[in-house]
Amino acid sequence: MTKIKAGIVGATGFTGAELVRLLYQHPMVEIEAITSESKTGASFADIHPHFYHIIEQSLRSADTIPALNLDVVFLALPHGVSMEYVKKFAETPLKIIDLSGDFRLSGKEIYEHWYNKPHHYPEGFGKSAYGLPELHGTAIRESYLIANPGCYPTSSIIALAPLVKNGLIREEEIIIDAKSGVTGAGVKPKPGTHFSSVNDNFNSYGLKKHRHTVEIEEQLTQLSAHNITLQFTPHLLPVDRGILATVYTRPKQSMDQQLLDEVYQDFYAEHPFVRWRQSPPGIKDVRGTNYCDLYAVYDERTDRIITLSAIDNLVKGAAGQAIQNMNIMFNLDERMGLDVVPMKP
Amino acid sequence: MTKIKAGIVGATGFTGAELVRLLYQHPMVEIEAITSESKTGASFADIHPHFYHIIEQSLRSADTIPALNLDVVFLALPHGVSMEYVKKFAETPLKIIDLSGDFRLSGKEIYEHWYNKPHHYPEGFGKSAYGLPELHGTAIRESYLIANPGCYPTSSIIALAPLVKNGLIREEEIIIDAKSGVTGAGVKPKPGTHFSSVNDNFNSYGLKKHRHTVEIEEQLTQLSAHNITLQFTPHLLPVDRGILATVYTRPKQSMDQQLLDEVYQDFYAEHPFVRWRQSPPGIKDVRGTNYCDLYAVYDERTDRIITLSAIDNLVKGAAGQAIQNMNIMFNLDERMGLDVVPMKP
Amino acid sequence: MTKIKAGIVGATGFTGAELVRLLYQHPMVEIEAITSESKTGASFADIHPHFYHIIEQSLRSADTIPALNLDVVFLALPHGVSMEYVKKFAETPLKIIDLSGDFRLSGKEIYEHWYNKPHHYPEGFGKSAYGLPELHGTAIRESYLIANPGCYPTSSIIALAPLVKNGLIREEEIIIDAKSGVTGAGVKPKPGTHFSSVNDNFNSYGLKKHRHTVEIEEQLTQLSAHNITLQFTPHLLPVDRGILATVYTRPKQSMDQQLLDEVYQDFYAEHPFVRWRQSPPGIKDVRGTNYCDLYAVYDERTDRIITLSAIDNLVKGAAGQAIQNMNIMFNLDERMGLDVVPMKP
Amino acid sequence: MTKIKAGIVGATGFTGAELVRLLYQHPMVEIEAITSESKTGASFADIHPHFYHIIEQSLRSADTIPALNLDVVFLALPHGVSMEYVKKFAETPLKIIDLSGDFRLSGKEIYEHWYNKPHHYPEGFGKSAYGLPELHGTAIRESYLIANPGCYPTSSIIALAPLVKNGLIREEEIIIDAKSGVTGAGVKPKPGTHFSSVNDNFNSYGLKKHRHTVEIEEQLTQLSAHNITLQFTPHLLPVDRGILATVYTRPKQSMDQQLLDEVYQDFYAEHPFVRWRQSPPGIKDVRGTNYCDLYAVYDERTDRIITLSAIDNLVKGAAGQAIQNMNIMFNLDERMGLDVVPMKP
Repeated sequence: MTKIKAGIVGATGFTGAELVRLLYQHPMVEIEAITSESKTGASFADIHPHFYHIIEQSLRSADTIPALNLDVVFLALPHGVSMEYVKKFAETPLKIIDLSGDFRLSGKEIYEHWYNKPHHYPEGFGKSAYGLPELHGTAIRESYLIANPGCYPTSSIIALAPLVKNGLIREEEIIIDAKSGVTGAGVKPKPGTHFSSVNDNFNSYGLKKHRHTVEIEEQLTQLSAHNITLQFTPHLLPVDRGILATVYTRPKQSMDQQLLDEVYQDFYAEHPFVRWRQSPPGIKDVRGTNYCDLYAVYDERTDRIITLSAIDNLVKGAAGQAIQNMNIMFNLDERMGLDVVPMKP
Repeated sequence: MTKIKAGIVGATGFTGAELVRLLYQHPMVEIEAITSESKTGASFADIHPHFYHIIEQSLRSADTIPALNLDVVFLALPHGVSMEYVKKFAETPLKIIDLSGDFRLSGKEIYEHWYNKPHHYPEGFGKSAYGLPELHGTAIRESYLIANPGCYPTSSIIALAPLVKNGLIREEEIIIDAKSGVTGAGVKPKPGTHFSSVNDNFNSYGLKKHRHTVEIEEQLTQLSAHNITLQFTPHLLPVDRGILATVYTRPKQSMDQQLLDEVYQDFYAEHPFVRWRQSPPGIKDVRGTNYCDLYAVYDERTDRIITLSAIDNLVKGAAGQAIQNMNIMFNLDERMGLDVVPMKP
Repeated sequence: MTKIKAGIVGATGFTGAELVRLLYQHPMVEIEAITSESKTGASFADIHPHFYHIIEQSLRSADTIPALNLDVVFLALPHGVSMEYVKKFAETPLKIIDLSGDFRLSGKEIYEHWYNKPHHYPEGFGKSAYGLPELHGTAIRESYLIANPGCYPTSSIIALAPLVKNGLIREEEIIIDAKSGVTGAGVKPKPGTHFSSVNDNFNSYGLKKHRHTVEIEEQLTQLSAHNITLQFTPHLLPVDRGILATVYTRPKQSMDQQLLDEVYQDFYAEHPFVRWRQSPPGIKDVRGTNYCDLYAVYDERTDRIITLSAIDNLVKGAAGQAIQNMNIMFNLDERMGLDVVPMKP
Repeated sequence: MTKIKAGIVGATGFTGAELVRLLYQHPMVEIEAITSESKTGASFADIHPHFYHIIEQSLRSADTIPALNLDVVFLALPHGVSMEYVKKFAETPLKIIDLSGDFRLSGKEIYEHWYNKPHHYPEGFGKSAYGLPELHGTAIRESYLIANPGCYPTSSIIALAPLVKNGLIREEEIIIDAKSGVTGAGVKPKPGTHFSSVNDNFNSYGLKKHRHTVEIEEQLTQLSAHNITLQFTPHLLPVDRGILATVYTRPKQSMDQQLLDEVYQDFYAEHPFVRWRQSPPGIKDVRGTNYCDLYAVYDERTDRIITLSAIDNLVKGAAGQAIQNMNIMFNLDERMGLDVVPMKP
């Protein structure tokens, strides 16, 4: 069987490098092209020295992609930039997995409201599948354009989908208190990502207005009979990788721990990357892997459910999920290239 | 004016050492005795080498305390042990500031339920004041026995008191998502405090049953007309010091940001250690100090209030608040010895 | 081709878990047995929860190993314990890779002096090969017992071997200033591995007497015409994994940068896990992998060579090198199962 | 007694903020002015929010300083910028403590060689005292211009001075392997100070050419009969604050541990900020304070002395030492305002 010829567009960030790291271990993929407009001509390993002796190919311009007859491209680009390439590549036979937020929402208006910038390729909304395989496997298989989910939405939706889909909770009382490692803020040096701003520190940010709020709401609304509005509060952890979402909900009717366990286990029985845990997961339990570890308790005192959801934001929250989507698009086992053990410690 | 003669009972833990660190800088205190039953006779600086050339006095047995004619003792002892000394010292003229949980709750039964051990000095409940100066200044001034609050309760109650006291929120919908540094788990080496368990990791613990839940509930119930039951979820941060509590509440009636700001500013106008912030506080903003930094937003989309409360768990959450209480008990300015700048970075 | 049937003896520590993590990804190995005397009967994933859904086999007693017809056992045991199993398994056809220090030195006397305990199987010294593949490939291939090198010796010897072997440096002036992550100190909770002892801290330890000193000296002496005595100073880094050795030497005769580069590149031209770098390596550049990254400068001002050597102490310094040795013993490509990209960040 | 009126020129960096933190606690100092050219008019607490409610004065331009009749200014400015203000203020009665490197070396030529920029006020070299109080107390007292030492030189010179001054070591064999926290690299966000570049990482930098090399050499040469050339290698620790210097030397004649202890203890008997330790110091043992913790062993096997020297780079390595110098210049106890306990953990 011939290998999939893949290109990575945007190589200087954390996500681009993680895609290369993971694809290198994929038995059915050949990395044919890595692009960077700012570093064209440089070696990939010059920008990411941990790749020396492993991946030393030259970075090319993304403009050269269409001529390469690739099978798939991964877009690891900023919001707003990605849409331009999706538009351009739409005329080619390429399958496209877009890791930006440009096609995750339901349409142009809602995008422009939350992202505060114009959208130049609204046609893409109708063509894309939301790339959360645990919910949208069929659509992913049939689409040429995948909107790879955001990191917070991945952890949050996986935690909430079984409860919403089964109509078990009061939808107006959902609270997601989420905590993420620093790589979620990007590779660009900023005051807020200076080591001494983050180390031994912890704070919330983006209160009331983080873009991932609406992404989660739209996805859950699809699973429900009603519009869902929820509370989402992100925080910055002094770690490189990992998201823990602590999700508070209230059952609509009587609940107990056994029922809760069953709901989750049934929902994810066929989904190998969701692990149902017997104790609260730590983010290091999934580090470097595509797993989402789930745990939930029902608190009789307060009549609330607390669900904990842990992922690696660069893997299940970005590059790993993109590869899982690629596997599905190419009819491969969704675990291919991703079946590794978390790196702990 | 003669100095206050102080003793610290229990010197090997983080709280004991922090008491000595802070009292050393207090202009009106003389540290007359430091005790340890396990290290009697050793130098304090042998156990805590950062005190070399600063505090090198010998550790004595707590049994020698009554003969020393001290003015005040700080008990930095485990739950269950502390009550024995409170009982013993009750017959002396000593003022006692107990940093354990032994006298924080309303009585023997509730204590034994949540702490899962017998209480040997229930008479103490009636004699103690709950040492949160922002709420109980008068009682503290008039009491000889202070139950110094827990670290999580300190940050949580300060965040909630203005809302509860003013009857502004629906009391059945309070959720506290709290995150603490490792020193809160004590100095004793355990698998969960091994560097490699904590570093680059993050997880919740004590779901549904953490003892601080009932401490918070009882204090807020005192401020309200009704019994309050709330959700409290602690998490372990990969940092030494600091607690950030993210508190979710719902207004009873119409709310806006201006009203919210006024409520908090009015409530703490006379309390120098509560700082009303204009942006979300980080735990490093209060590190090493007795400040509690507060910030709150009203989210119109969801009709919820989110309050953020940051303290140093070893200072405002333990040793610093104990000294603030001592200042009040001895009619000193409550800032005395505590008026320092946070250490950041 | 049938797979190699492997057993891991001692599963509760960091090294045991890392062996399982790496062997899981080895295409030619089947993990047939994992042992623990203290946790016999428990699931491996109960002790290391990040293995849930991946490796959940029951832990057995090491006494059951001989009956299993394995091909190879890895001993991830403490010094002193390991020798008992080497002795016991010597009568079986098993290949043995011992990750302890019990057979790394030249004999009983020197072992007992530096390890301060009796050696119960001195016959093993004559039968073992020192498992540094970059120096002893042939001996490793022909031996049934491998003494897998210490973590500090691995980084130090790789840095020094080209200089010593080529007679380029004054052997009495070697200084190794080495820094290691906390996993090198073992999984057992101790005051020195408490998060708050290590976080934001840094110190040296084991001055003048660390056991790895003699291991490095003996190996280098084999490459030289003379006895080598050197200075070795370890330090504890606030990181989980990684060793950086900063090695100071003086050239015997005239030296320049070009010659220095050539010496190193020639020496390791055929060794895929040694990467010659153009800038100082960080320990994160090799994290999770079997690479040893080398960099050296000649300082004309001082007439000294400074060599920097970075490894992951759990991989090239322990489990990865053990698998590299296994590959050689079984005539496999030495990279098999180890050809992965470092996890950074 | 009237208070000293002090100004801090350059308030946005770590050193400026640390000066304000420490001066706030100085009983004899009034902070009259804080300057910033880039943030003129803003509140100091807007830039450093941990100062809210503590120091909220407006930042002014440094041009307003001469009119203020201050007693002393601290220059917390970049190299090259500082000299312009030293030149300007030379015509005023101000005492000047310059925390940059502009006047630490012996003259214009050597400065321009190592700093690679022109020096515009070479007259200053003759007027300045090198502000290491343990060596130059008298000169400091008599000078109006202090060149406050670099952080690495402070830790290194204190470690080496007793050995060099007493002629005990072979001066051509000095090696300093130094490790520093990230605040030493400044507040400006750069790729190398991004959290994910530093966290769980460790590397050397500035090999062969770090400017502090010549500063150490010149100071030691003053203590010796000969020119000293030495090896200095800095490394970047994943911590905020702290330097540990591991210093290797060889005795000229016979040495033993007792003699070594005596040499150090005698040399620093009258210097309260140098603490002679009985075990290797960690950088957290001095965090937030002006202490330099020293420890040394003589290794009989190798005939070498290993000296360990720990400081807080922002305090004894910058702002604290500057205040110690100010105390000396104003005939105050050199400990005034600096007599605090290290913050550990």
